[in-house]
Amino acid sequence: MDHKERVPDAVARRLPGYYRNLRELETEDVLRVSSQVLGKRMGLTASQIRQDINCFGGFGQQGYGYHVPTLKRYIGQILGVDGKHQMVIVGAGNIGSAVINYPSFRKEGFRVQALFDISPERIGQIVQEVPVLPVDELEAYLRAHSIDIIVIATPADKAQEIVDLAAAENVRAIWNFAPVDLSVPATMEIANVHLSDSLMGLSFRLHEREVAQEKGKQWIKE
Amino acid sequence: MDHKERVPDAVARRLPGYYRNLRELETEDVLRVSSQVLGKRMGLTASQIRQDINCFGGFGQQGYGYHVPTLKRYIGQILGVDGKHQMVIVGAGNIGSAVINYPSFRKEGFRVQALFDISPERIGQIVQEVPVLPVDELEAYLRAHSIDIIVIATPADKAQEIVDLAAAENVRAIWNFAPVDLSVPATMEIANVHLSDSLMGLSFRLHEREVAQEKGKQWIKE
Repeated sequence: MDHKERVPDAVARRLPGYYRNLRELETEDVLRVSSQVLGKRMGLTASQIRQDINCFGGFGQQGYGYHVPTLKRYIGQILGVDGKHQMVIVGAGNIGSAVINYPSFRKEGFRVQALFDISPERIGQIVQEVPVLPVDELEAYLRAHSIDIIVIATPADKAQEIVDLAAAENVRAIWNFAPVDLSVPATMEIANVHLSDSLMGLSFRLHEREVAQEKGKQWIKE
Repeated sequence: MDHKERVPDAVARRLPGYYRNLRELETEDVLRVSSQVLGKRMGLTASQIRQDINCFGGFGQQGYGYHVPTLKRYIGQILGVDGKHQMVIVGAGNIGSAVINYPSFRKEGFRVQALFDISPERIGQIVQEVPVLPVDELEAYLRAHSIDIIVIATPADKAQEIVDLAAAENVRAIWNFAPVDLSVPATMEIANVHLSDSLMGLSFRLHEREVAQEKGKQWIKE
């Protein structure tokens, strides 16, 4: 089966959700899933599911649904999760610890090779069999090891210098948790997890509801 | 100044980023910012910035830029961050701890009133002046206190029951970190932080680059 040239962005954004749900179905020993059932799990319509999956070739047979292991393996290949990704985490605080303790990453080929931190109490600790090294040694470490992804879990004001250092050492990707928009060279990919943006997005929608409920009331004046 | 009826979704998604950048500019004592400078910080074009800000009324004066405190206050109002949001966190592990230790939430009116956990070692601890309570007591707690947002930082298989319990007690919003798609009633808002989806999205883009580099090579066969 041929993978079409490029998966549309909207579909690409949904792929991790497909993968996650198919993985869950697999652990539930479900062998086939209909577009209705998959849609219900993912909050999409059955027709949306069929359209998405048609984008990469068409897997279902009318009335039979999708073969869970095949579709999961295929989407995993598109996502590149069947490869091995070497990672280091900079910042061994709560976020860094959450990432290294995340149950499914290792299974999906994401391997944390080292943690880096600035705090003398954390340096020298071993977290999930991974050592916490002094952040001063990051540059030398990146020079000596082939690292694909750097996880930035530092305060906002330290993040850009880590990116610059990583770029100089040919790291390919940044996974950023610091609450700041970073500039990366065209040679690098970046994904951000901005906790405060997510929370504010939620508060925005709560506020929109309040405004709708008080419709007619002028709620902002200047 | 009148707030237009509804902020378009694409603009709404960028609002937290605006707020965050304006907050940073404020701490840097910048009083006015041009659409060029703001765009550069946010990875948007100047024209995009002007269009977005025009959506909610038009603030800049040609050649003078935007008045940082006014625009920040206004966007903060739209985001509802000037209100007070009472929160509880279910799950006092790394994610729960990361949320409660996040520096800016408290300043923006998000108050964590209690943590809940199942682990006897965690129950009874005090984190950032907030007690860790047994999760058995969550229902009674929600009945006795007015809570706006529940942060779900539990394993995936415990998350839906927390939502159901919260819905029954009229909680208005769920901030979900569990790696699962939850169903919420129409009376509730939900925002998800799916770490594994974010990491897989990054791996997808790395993989796309590899594929582009090896163009012509058939990389998936069945």
